[in-house]
Amino acid sequence: MKKTFLIVLGLAAGLRGYGQTTVPLTARMEQVGLTFALGPGGQPTYAVQYGAQAVLKPSRLGLALADGQGFDGPLEVVGSETKEVDETWRPVWGEVRSIRNHYQQLTVHLRQPAPPRRQLDVVFRVFADGVGFRYEFPAQSALQYFTVQDEKTEFNLPANHKAFWIPGDYDSNEYTYSTTRLSEVNSANIEAIQLKSAPQRVQTPLMLKSDDGLYINIHEAALVNYPALMLNVDTKTFGLSSQLVPDATGTGAKAYLQAPEHTPWRTIIVSNKAPDVLASKLILNLNEPTKLTETSWIQPQKFVGVWWEMHVNKASWNYSDVSNIKLADTDWGKLTPNGHHGANTANVKRYIDFAAKYGLQSVLVEGWNVGWEDWANNWKEEVFDFVTPYPDFAVAELQQYAQSKGVKLMMHHETSSSVTNYERRQDAAYRFMKEHNYDAVKTGYVGRIIPRGEHHDGQWMVNHYVRTAQKTADNHIMVDMHESVRPTGLHRTYPNWLASEAARGNEFNAWSSGNPPEHETILPFTRLIGGPMDYTPGIFQIKLEGWNPQRNQGKQVHTTLTKQLALYVTLYSPLQMAADLPEAYEQHLDAFQFIRDVPVDWDDTRILLAEPGEYITTARKAKGKDEWYVGSITDEQARQQQIKLDFLTPGQQYEAILYADGKGGSWDKNPQAYQIRRQKVTSKTTLKLQLAPGGGTAISIKPSR
Amino acid sequence: MKKTFLIVLGLAAGLRGYGQTTVPLTARMEQVGLTFALGPGGQPTYAVQYGAQAVLKPSRLGLALADGQGFDGPLEVVGSETKEVDETWRPVWGEVRSIRNHYQQLTVHLRQPAPPRRQLDVVFRVFADGVGFRYEFPAQSALQYFTVQDEKTEFNLPANHKAFWIPGDYDSNEYTYSTTRLSEVNSANIEAIQLKSAPQRVQTPLMLKSDDGLYINIHEAALVNYPALMLNVDTKTFGLSSQLVPDATGTGAKAYLQAPEHTPWRTIIVSNKAPDVLASKLILNLNEPTKLTETSWIQPQKFVGVWWEMHVNKASWNYSDVSNIKLADTDWGKLTPNGHHGANTANVKRYIDFAAKYGLQSVLVEGWNVGWEDWANNWKEEVFDFVTPYPDFAVAELQQYAQSKGVKLMMHHETSSSVTNYERRQDAAYRFMKEHNYDAVKTGYVGRIIPRGEHHDGQWMVNHYVRTAQKTADNHIMVDMHESVRPTGLHRTYPNWLASEAARGNEFNAWSSGNPPEHETILPFTRLIGGPMDYTPGIFQIKLEGWNPQRNQGKQVHTTLTKQLALYVTLYSPLQMAADLPEAYEQHLDAFQFIRDVPVDWDDTRILLAEPGEYITTARKAKGKDEWYVGSITDEQARQQQIKLDFLTPGQQYEAILYADGKGGSWDKNPQAYQIRRQKVTSKTTLKLQLAPGGGTAISIKPSR
Repeated sequence: MKKTFLIVLGLAAGLRGYGQTTVPLTARMEQVGLTFALGPGGQPTYAVQYGAQAVLKPSRLGLALADGQGFDGPLEVVGSETKEVDETWRPVWGEVRSIRNHYQQLTVHLRQPAPPRRQLDVVFRVFADGVGFRYEFPAQSALQYFTVQDEKTEFNLPANHKAFWIPGDYDSNEYTYSTTRLSEVNSANIEAIQLKSAPQRVQTPLMLKSDDGLYINIHEAALVNYPALMLNVDTKTFGLSSQLVPDATGTGAKAYLQAPEHTPWRTIIVSNKAPDVLASKLILNLNEPTKLTETSWIQPQKFVGVWWEMHVNKASWNYSDVSNIKLADTDWGKLTPNGHHGANTANVKRYIDFAAKYGLQSVLVEGWNVGWEDWANNWKEEVFDFVTPYPDFAVAELQQYAQSKGVKLMMHHETSSSVTNYERRQDAAYRFMKEHNYDAVKTGYVGRIIPRGEHHDGQWMVNHYVRTAQKTADNHIMVDMHESVRPTGLHRTYPNWLASEAARGNEFNAWSSGNPPEHETILPFTRLIGGPMDYTPGIFQIKLEGWNPQRNQGKQVHTTLTKQLALYVTLYSPLQMAADLPEAYEQHLDAFQFIRDVPVDWDDTRILLAEPGEYITTARKAKGKDEWYVGSITDEQARQQQIKLDFLTPGQQYEAILYADGKGGSWDKNPQAYQIRRQKVTSKTTLKLQLAPGGGTAISIKPSR
Repeated sequence: MKKTFLIVLGLAAGLRGYGQTTVPLTARMEQVGLTFALGPGGQPTYAVQYGAQAVLKPSRLGLALADGQGFDGPLEVVGSETKEVDETWRPVWGEVRSIRNHYQQLTVHLRQPAPPRRQLDVVFRVFADGVGFRYEFPAQSALQYFTVQDEKTEFNLPANHKAFWIPGDYDSNEYTYSTTRLSEVNSANIEAIQLKSAPQRVQTPLMLKSDDGLYINIHEAALVNYPALMLNVDTKTFGLSSQLVPDATGTGAKAYLQAPEHTPWRTIIVSNKAPDVLASKLILNLNEPTKLTETSWIQPQKFVGVWWEMHVNKASWNYSDVSNIKLADTDWGKLTPNGHHGANTANVKRYIDFAAKYGLQSVLVEGWNVGWEDWANNWKEEVFDFVTPYPDFAVAELQQYAQSKGVKLMMHHETSSSVTNYERRQDAAYRFMKEHNYDAVKTGYVGRIIPRGEHHDGQWMVNHYVRTAQKTADNHIMVDMHESVRPTGLHRTYPNWLASEAARGNEFNAWSSGNPPEHETILPFTRLIGGPMDYTPGIFQIKLEGWNPQRNQGKQVHTTLTKQLALYVTLYSPLQMAADLPEAYEQHLDAFQFIRDVPVDWDDTRILLAEPGEYITTARKAKGKDEWYVGSITDEQARQQQIKLDFLTPGQQYEAILYADGKGGSWDKNPQAYQIRRQKVTSKTTLKLQLAPGGGTAISIKPSR
């Protein structure tokens, strides 16, 4: 939404004569201190403190350019400026109604000491919960077009912290997290999705915990026109160095830029309290405000979909079982149907009926369009056309039917990572959507990227995602991107970009070793630091053999049923799927009531308890209502928790409904055991929660009538 | 146009039991013989004879696939078929009214002797003037998606022939020709356009001449969904081996295919008479007939353009002289005009007036659209948008003005090789064209390709050119592609693809060492074997200092004035530019009359005299008229020629107008000397031509009234 007010509290001292040039230069906000200095060789460095504790030791700054005349040698400080900003703004949707953006900014003007005397600015913003900084390339005759060959930014940690990490794969972030000391980071034996990495390379957001109790998160904000940042870990010194995702030329080039330009923000969130990391708005604050002035078409929502039934081998995306088709040459009407195509008209109507009956806004349909017979892993360019339905999917009839029931259909565009093909067809695809009354699309990027040689997380693809966010916005379309680069807060700028997957979602439980119970206690500290995730919670039929005994033998979601409910609160997203099949929900309508009730947009959020890899308990206040929802989850450990409801309006009586693990419940032995109880509560109440191993509790709290 | 009739004269003997499997297998058409055999290691080979002369010694066939299970090892013959086809078809436009397609076809069915027992067919077509063959991958369960890693096709020449060659650059064919023995092929010291090659690698069409008088041309036909073929020359054995242009992955992969599929045709044109090579329709015959049924919108034409004045430094493509702009952020109206922008409304009107006055159909305008300030060599993706005119180019007004004068404007789309950007904007660009009454576009691909790492001549770009031919056809737009891969006869299939540049055009004379006088005597034997070239002949102001003494010092076109006229006949194209400025033509309106008269579409063509690198004399009959036009050109040698007009209708009286070099004329000393004389002629006349060094003669012959 709009900025409500902006107070520039003060411009810096030292603006005379282009500012101060004596290093070190410092900036501070409450506990967080930043020091900029020049190293012995004249290279710029920075260091971060939290109170008396070192967060980052002096760490190198700089960039190497392809022409050899970059900013990786000595630089001189030719000036500096500071200013303080304190403003508050309202997101279009989110975890809180308004966000304070309060920081001290230090801009350091640097210059090469010898010709071509190129200039580089480093801009630091110091918040009470961390630091963001970026490189800015001012307009100058000596630097117009240039290629970033390597970024030299370091994050030198003072000790062998505990790290929550996934491999630095250039093409996938769909991994379970490893929790090790920095000295033990090694992804050599991790089962790869499509690994292009090195054993000591990890992805951001990287969550760290020091032995002296600091929680540190390293990531980036506003990733635009630049490759994603990965980190090489020095397992001896505990220094992290930047690894940008390279382009397709094989020259090691990373980013093609034109001045004036800037890099994304490099971010360090820090606190001695884990909940502060989850509550941080630092990354959102470092993103640009949206340029959209009319946002009523952007609707946070819950949805069901013809989707999980494919994952559990009850249905297929493809309409027929041939293995070798050509998009342009195939007469789809003449293919022999395989008899279990999920996206058939009758089945979609069933989902529409279900959504309408239980008040969910929309129905996603995957596999509606031709091309799924051999869509993946063939490095085929012409895979989908995004406008031709299978013979058994009646677009117009379904759209009319959905409309008559007050339900929206959600479009699906799997690109198979043939992005050149998608870009050629995007205009026509969005035109088709608008003609058929779709206003939200889930995109997918499974497989190797075309343009061949490019990576999911390289500059070219980063620009594609951003362009797609803009292009969908131009068409008043909401978008949910799967297999994209992990988010960096761009949903502030593009509030129609409701969510991304960009991590290992619930689906992995259906066809791999799955996600361990700790997974969802780490995601908010890592992947979700950048933005909402379409995790697809809400699986009630936890043992998957029930759907297909042969093909799902031993498969299950690593959860209890009520933990699935709690995820709607602990994993924030404005777009939440009720991922299971209607027939699964209809067997547990009492528990399903929580999914019906839980909002996807909030006025306030309180992180009550949190420890990465162990537990998270979050309370949120519904947008525009005096209703609260609590989610509490644990890893494989059973836990007792006491939570004070002191966030409730004093004096007001509420009724809480607790959806808790049942007696003897546990994710592996008895995942579907649950109990639902009602309790009168006030702001003085303390609730006792009992979480089963791999379990969770969900609570709705509404004013008593 | 349409096939007029098709006679399948006979299916082969030996179709019983899946055909003959005893090698060698042979096929023959008149003097040309083809032998297929298996080599000592079981690898397939082929050899070509012309009468008793060996054209190609036994030469290897095969393909290596990326999965290691390709067709580069031993194969067994599991069957073969032959058939003879004799049909005649009419091109939509061209050098002749109808084309005979008469060949003997031999299909050899091959199979790997061990599992996976993949099948491969080699299909040979033997014509009276050469051989075409291609690999075909039948539909089979053991081969669906596959990657061609290398093509193993060889062309083993029996002796150290003379070769007319350019370096095997993956990104440019804009070279002058080297004429050497095969043993001396070496491009190491050739000034590169953007060379990615090896010293002994050359491009096709490769023209060869043997000491015993054979003229041999090696090229390919119907290049679709495959990279261009280049040739590695073994300077000791005179063997040529295939080099396909690689993709961007850096893995050496060449083509991503899906069976059923086939490669382009590999072609060997051969004769003991040089004119036969120029007259060959082998490559057109190997291309697919067009699917277009309504072609009245395809109009061969002559045009002038706001173009040469930029090359001769009288005007600029760019509107202002800033060096660093961003397409999306620039307020074009606020830029300071440089005062010499060529594509301004008044100047374009001048060209429209000129075209209207002298009966030329259209006016090309380059530099009309924003983005030219820093368009080249920056590896910038968002260079042009193809729909925004510069402030001084009044699109609507000019379109109205042109229409009132009966003249068409021709669109220009320079992509700067940012092809991803062009593809995203192609739909909008063509919509803009149709809205503004444009029906022809000249495209350009200057610079390094984006998708980065891809090459102009790789599979991805080959598909782009073909897709663009199709997409323009869908919009009833004619297209002329510059800096594209060299043609392979696809104008049969896409008759709206009127011409390409794809070689070193006349423009090089304006800003480089230029094209030597022999250049245009080689082009028809090389580049034009694949299809028409937009060479931009017709330069009258040959010494370029006249336009800009400072910047054009010593620059000139390496030609006489009347050689420029002769090129309209010797270099066939349905799209011919009168490339010079109106003021140049207005000083020589008597000579300009030939350009006004000469057609661009023909009923018949006779190559009267030809020797590559020395001279070409061609006579053509105007479409639907009893009018003939003759062009005769020479290299730097003065020549006398006698040409018999026995192609004229017997008994008919004609008036010939001869545009000949003037006395003492020569390309370097006195290029503008010319004489025009009229002469009564009949079919019994023999004309004596006197060509100056670097000169030429043009003749129009019309029935006497």
